[in-house]
Amino acid sequence: MPTTDEITQHDHMHAWSSAINKPQTAQEVDAGAPPEKSTSSGLQKTSSGLETTRQRLGLHPTAPISEDHDVAPHQDLLWSRVRLTLREPFAEFWGTFILVLFGNASVAQVLLSQRLETAPGANGFGEYQSISWGWGLGVMLGVYVAGDSGAYLNPAITFSSCLYRGLPWRRFPLYFIAQMLGGFVAAGVLYANYVTAIDDFEGYGIRTVPPIPTATAGIFCTYPQTFLTKSSQFFSEFIASTLLMFVIFALKDDSNNGGGGNWFPLGLFFLIFGLGACFGYETGYAINMARDTGPRLMSYFLGYGSEVWSAGDYYFWVPIVAPFLGCAFGGFLYDVFIFTGKSPVNTPWMGLKRVAKPNEAWKAHKAHERRVKEEGIV
Amino acid sequence: MPTTDEITQHDHMHAWSSAINKPQTAQEVDAGAPPEKSTSSGLQKTSSGLETTRQRLGLHPTAPISEDHDVAPHQDLLWSRVRLTLREPFAEFWGTFILVLFGNASVAQVLLSQRLETAPGANGFGEYQSISWGWGLGVMLGVYVAGDSGAYLNPAITFSSCLYRGLPWRRFPLYFIAQMLGGFVAAGVLYANYVTAIDDFEGYGIRTVPPIPTATAGIFCTYPQTFLTKSSQFFSEFIASTLLMFVIFALKDDSNNGGGGNWFPLGLFFLIFGLGACFGYETGYAINMARDTGPRLMSYFLGYGSEVWSAGDYYFWVPIVAPFLGCAFGGFLYDVFIFTGKSPVNTPWMGLKRVAKPNEAWKAHKAHERRVKEEGIV
Amino acid sequence: MPTTDEITQHDHMHAWSSAINKPQTAQEVDAGAPPEKSTSSGLQKTSSGLETTRQRLGLHPTAPISEDHDVAPHQDLLWSRVRLTLREPFAEFWGTFILVLFGNASVAQVLLSQRLETAPGANGFGEYQSISWGWGLGVMLGVYVAGDSGAYLNPAITFSSCLYRGLPWRRFPLYFIAQMLGGFVAAGVLYANYVTAIDDFEGYGIRTVPPIPTATAGIFCTYPQTFLTKSSQFFSEFIASTLLMFVIFALKDDSNNGGGGNWFPLGLFFLIFGLGACFGYETGYAINMARDTGPRLMSYFLGYGSEVWSAGDYYFWVPIVAPFLGCAFGGFLYDVFIFTGKSPVNTPWMGLKRVAKPNEAWKAHKAHERRVKEEGIV
Amino acid sequence: MPTTDEITQHDHMHAWSSAINKPQTAQEVDAGAPPEKSTSSGLQKTSSGLETTRQRLGLHPTAPISEDHDVAPHQDLLWSRVRLTLREPFAEFWGTFILVLFGNASVAQVLLSQRLETAPGANGFGEYQSISWGWGLGVMLGVYVAGDSGAYLNPAITFSSCLYRGLPWRRFPLYFIAQMLGGFVAAGVLYANYVTAIDDFEGYGIRTVPPIPTATAGIFCTYPQTFLTKSSQFFSEFIASTLLMFVIFALKDDSNNGGGGNWFPLGLFFLIFGLGACFGYETGYAINMARDTGPRLMSYFLGYGSEVWSAGDYYFWVPIVAPFLGCAFGGFLYDVFIFTGKSPVNTPWMGLKRVAKPNEAWKAHKAHERRVKEEGIV
Repeated sequence: MPTTDEITQHDHMHAWSSAINKPQTAQEVDAGAPPEKSTSSGLQKTSSGLETTRQRLGLHPTAPISEDHDVAPHQDLLWSRVRLTLREPFAEFWGTFILVLFGNASVAQVLLSQRLETAPGANGFGEYQSISWGWGLGVMLGVYVAGDSGAYLNPAITFSSCLYRGLPWRRFPLYFIAQMLGGFVAAGVLYANYVTAIDDFEGYGIRTVPPIPTATAGIFCTYPQTFLTKSSQFFSEFIASTLLMFVIFALKDDSNNGGGGNWFPLGLFFLIFGLGACFGYETGYAINMARDTGPRLMSYFLGYGSEVWSAGDYYFWVPIVAPFLGCAFGGFLYDVFIFTGKSPVNTPWMGLKRVAKPNEAWKAHKAHERRVKEEGIV
Repeated sequence: MPTTDEITQHDHMHAWSSAINKPQTAQEVDAGAPPEKSTSSGLQKTSSGLETTRQRLGLHPTAPISEDHDVAPHQDLLWSRVRLTLREPFAEFWGTFILVLFGNASVAQVLLSQRLETAPGANGFGEYQSISWGWGLGVMLGVYVAGDSGAYLNPAITFSSCLYRGLPWRRFPLYFIAQMLGGFVAAGVLYANYVTAIDDFEGYGIRTVPPIPTATAGIFCTYPQTFLTKSSQFFSEFIASTLLMFVIFALKDDSNNGGGGNWFPLGLFFLIFGLGACFGYETGYAINMARDTGPRLMSYFLGYGSEVWSAGDYYFWVPIVAPFLGCAFGGFLYDVFIFTGKSPVNTPWMGLKRVAKPNEAWKAHKAHERRVKEEGIV
Repeated sequence: MPTTDEITQHDHMHAWSSAINKPQTAQEVDAGAPPEKSTSSGLQKTSSGLETTRQRLGLHPTAPISEDHDVAPHQDLLWSRVRLTLREPFAEFWGTFILVLFGNASVAQVLLSQRLETAPGANGFGEYQSISWGWGLGVMLGVYVAGDSGAYLNPAITFSSCLYRGLPWRRFPLYFIAQMLGGFVAAGVLYANYVTAIDDFEGYGIRTVPPIPTATAGIFCTYPQTFLTKSSQFFSEFIASTLLMFVIFALKDDSNNGGGGNWFPLGLFFLIFGLGACFGYETGYAINMARDTGPRLMSYFLGYGSEVWSAGDYYFWVPIVAPFLGCAFGGFLYDVFIFTGKSPVNTPWMGLKRVAKPNEAWKAHKAHERRVKEEGIV
Repeated sequence: MPTTDEITQHDHMHAWSSAINKPQTAQEVDAGAPPEKSTSSGLQKTSSGLETTRQRLGLHPTAPISEDHDVAPHQDLLWSRVRLTLREPFAEFWGTFILVLFGNASVAQVLLSQRLETAPGANGFGEYQSISWGWGLGVMLGVYVAGDSGAYLNPAITFSSCLYRGLPWRRFPLYFIAQMLGGFVAAGVLYANYVTAIDDFEGYGIRTVPPIPTATAGIFCTYPQTFLTKSSQFFSEFIASTLLMFVIFALKDDSNNGGGGNWFPLGLFFLIFGLGACFGYETGYAINMARDTGPRLMSYFLGYGSEVWSAGDYYFWVPIVAPFLGCAFGGFLYDVFIFTGKSPVNTPWMGLKRVAKPNEAWKAHKAHERRVKEEGIV
């Protein structure tokens, strides 16, 4: 939606060093001004190459890194340039990886050790609450790992941030890919860790899907309770996603009690824990396509059969669609009723004019593209 | 009780931008000086309209929003003006909504999935402690959402803040309505989410009230243990409400270790968790009319029958009366024994002179009203 | 032990307004200089009276209150003067009250509702972990309430602070009385709240002491496991008390990672929770005479019989003696191996010279007393 | 790996007073400049002696203590000099002691009281989750205690810090010894505390090792599930150690959301809790030689027999080797994909040149040694 001001609020979330090797005043950086065209050669060109590549990938031309870190050396090393180029995708990948690995592992441990009498307390290695902890702290630690990227770790949250917080849409594809891959790979690592225990639980080589009582597919992704209708499935994921986005926007709203960035990961822990303790019964609070569909695909490859898709009357699409709609609705609610900052909802017609008059939106878009080309902004 | 100084400490809790479009020195704002009368037209008038409406609703003339946020655009949009006008009621509504939705949902999940063998740990989706988490983090996240309004989320706490902390009484009615509506609507949304599971648990269309063993009415509001006498019911709610207010005043007292606003939501989490773990057995620690009576009314509309009122020997009025008395007593204890700041308790006769000599109080009130009229303060 | 420098580090823990109505430069206050003798009359005298009374009670002449709070009005009101005079004892009383009320109540709820099938999860209102939460957050919230007094809430910690941190010994008696009363009264309030439930659990009017299976005396104070020898009982309390003091000194040591006062209550929560989860089995981690002996006395008055004293082979004295010795040892260990600040351990002979040569200590004490008299320091 | 710049980033983690009694400008200290050679006698010599001793032990010449603390008096006291000399080893010893004591005790309490009906909730004094709490808060409190030393508390983390964060390798031996001793002694104290309860559980004088059902050796160190192959054992410890190091580097990375030193202990609590809840089933998440091998040796001395070494097909070496490899890999992953600061991975050939061309590395090492000798740097 943001068309004329693509240097977004989001991109300023983290301080970062100014453009790699171009002198810039602090003021220009603050104002989001585009780095001046470099005039000299050699290193400069390399740096411009970096910026160009990042722009083509849909990223902001300058990579977000700590001001204390010296970026000059990175110019000379191939891999360091790759890391700068793919900084945010790497961060989203590893953040989602951490999130899904801890989350899935908490389910695995509780499920595979249920009622185990040789456990210290003679009753397994944790119970349902363990899973609330696992996902809660998985998200929290994932955010610490992915801090520099914005730490969305969830395509639906990236989506809502594009809709309401001016994150450029061109960021979405690469973030999406990184998040999906993170969840997919984490599920594979998780399987490698627990494969012997799964064999011990289900029987060697046997892999089943709920509602079979000894099924272990629930380790990887969510399966709904059998008594749910399709609309109940959908509503459960929708309301949980709505709450997710609504509260995240509150935690990030400076006008509220959020307490700034340092408190965000802890607030998020409580939010995810709460969704697990309060909305985890019916559909397992997927609320994240990268957390559900990525591992689901992995479990399919690992031999759990096509039931991973057909179970729960082809439930698999619910955790794809519902989080996007729920997060969009949650963000809408927050901006309509609470948010006083910059949001399309706080523009005429709640920003729907563009939707209603696609012609004008198209023109604004074209005008913006021209401006980008001429002035070099991103 | 505060009569001559209606620009209260509370109203200064949050920084907000000065009056919408009137130049004001920072000093004047700090001193709570009334915005000067605007002399020009157009936008000014609109703004004055906003202020007048807010005053009539019992609110402070200027809405509390972040200083970073630009309020000018809000002048032009109908809905943005509505949002500014009803800023605090909206905040209280959504804060209480979040609080009750998480809280009720935690009870629903534990109750409806009790002993479920298909749960990951083969013993349901959480146990009693889950409920302490649910209400604790519900309040915490509710405070994050409602930050700008003062975040009382409980009529009894608003009441005590009026009594002891100079919150103008005229704020009470709108806050009260917002809080009650928040609890009422949240219970409805909760029901929509769990209706299928309730049908699965109780039987299709069957809705019963404790002490019937399979009753689900306890999801919405509290029902006392059957062995309790009326006075035990009352005392349990009274002591819990006393603790609630006593500790909240300590958490908000700068003279103590409270650690400032950032720590308040976390301290509150521990307080509510503690009330659940320590005073939740006998009457379910309602301690909040908006959390108990609102959802109770909703459950009545949803078909749980008149037993929602008659159960526990017409227990329903206890969570209405006890929290007000308990919070008033808790605040009194804190101000008598600990608080050294501005409080009616720290005035002659502990502020009771006004009660004892209603005549004088009435005169002071009238004098204040005249002053308001003449000088335009609120 | 500190003799010549009675204006202690402790007393500077909190900023407070300067002496009630005497002009003082900020520097003098910072340096702990005694307020100058007032020369005028009236209010001055009152204030001097306040100071004199506080000195006689063993307290610092000026009461610790927030710098933002205006103390002048307190001069005119009898009760406000009482509150200023007894500021720290009031704080210790209410802090210990909160600590014991939450702690005891968590035991009561878990014990009285054990295996209750009508609970939401069909298995009581909490299990053992609830008790770790209850005491942990009880201490945390107690510290928030008692912040201005130093928030020891435990005679053994006051004792160690006198030994190693220069808290004047004359503070000890009043703090001790306040802490003991806090625990005693809290146990009474707790009983009033749970008396009906106790009747329901044990039978009307029946009150028994462990190891009788249905005993409820364990709600109020600790009783050891039956297999323990007296030395095992003692060692368990001793090691827990040692850990308590050792870690508290670490949390309060600026040279370490403590993170300052704001983090202290949270660190304390984890410490107490840990003692409950790790050292709660054998003797119930009393580690605090005010938390054990106060409520024990109350339970004796409430009719639990003389078994409250004789149980566990007259175990009752262990939670009196072991915490003092354990905390003294824990503080000693910390100061010997880690602490680099001011401590008698960091003086010749580890401060034992005074003990070894009582004559000299006596002379130093006399010299100090003379100095106090002459210069008016406290 | 750092050769020319031995005054490392690590050593600047904490502010400390400048060299004991030599005048130095703040700037010099900040720049890590070596203290000037002292020219006078007496105290100076003592101080130089301290520095020399510390250097010989592999430590930084000046001990890290709070700037507020006056170090002068420490010069005169034998023990204070010892404490300054062994500051970091003492800190690592006590930090690891606290970590292992809380951790082991949490296992002991849950295991020894399993199913106990006389517990308040009639089902033991805690269940598996208690153990996640115990280790989590043990590490957190251990870090508070050992703050000044860097608080590694784990040889594998010290190892990775040498590899990637420029901690001089010569620090490793003394840190290693201190950590191992801390774990060893803590296990002994733990045994002294729980010996009567172990006798009660296993039978007087009987001490067995898993998988015997009533074994108590699991209190001290980890034993793997019987169904695991050697490679599964290894992988489980490896992946947990990788996660440990990867997330710790994220928590300590200023470029990320870590939030600075104050948040580190809390983040660590969540990390260790998560490893316990998510990767504790198969091998008990040893991930630390000091936490596993130290107590294992103690349990061997205490009479648990040679099975402590042979159990799980000589599993004992896995928690020795896997953490070093896992932490090295985790740190590598973080530096390759996320870290933009100073790291050998961010140098040509990812720092492997030195490994590939040992000749050159040797020369650089020699050159550095000469320089140290000539210039007196450490």
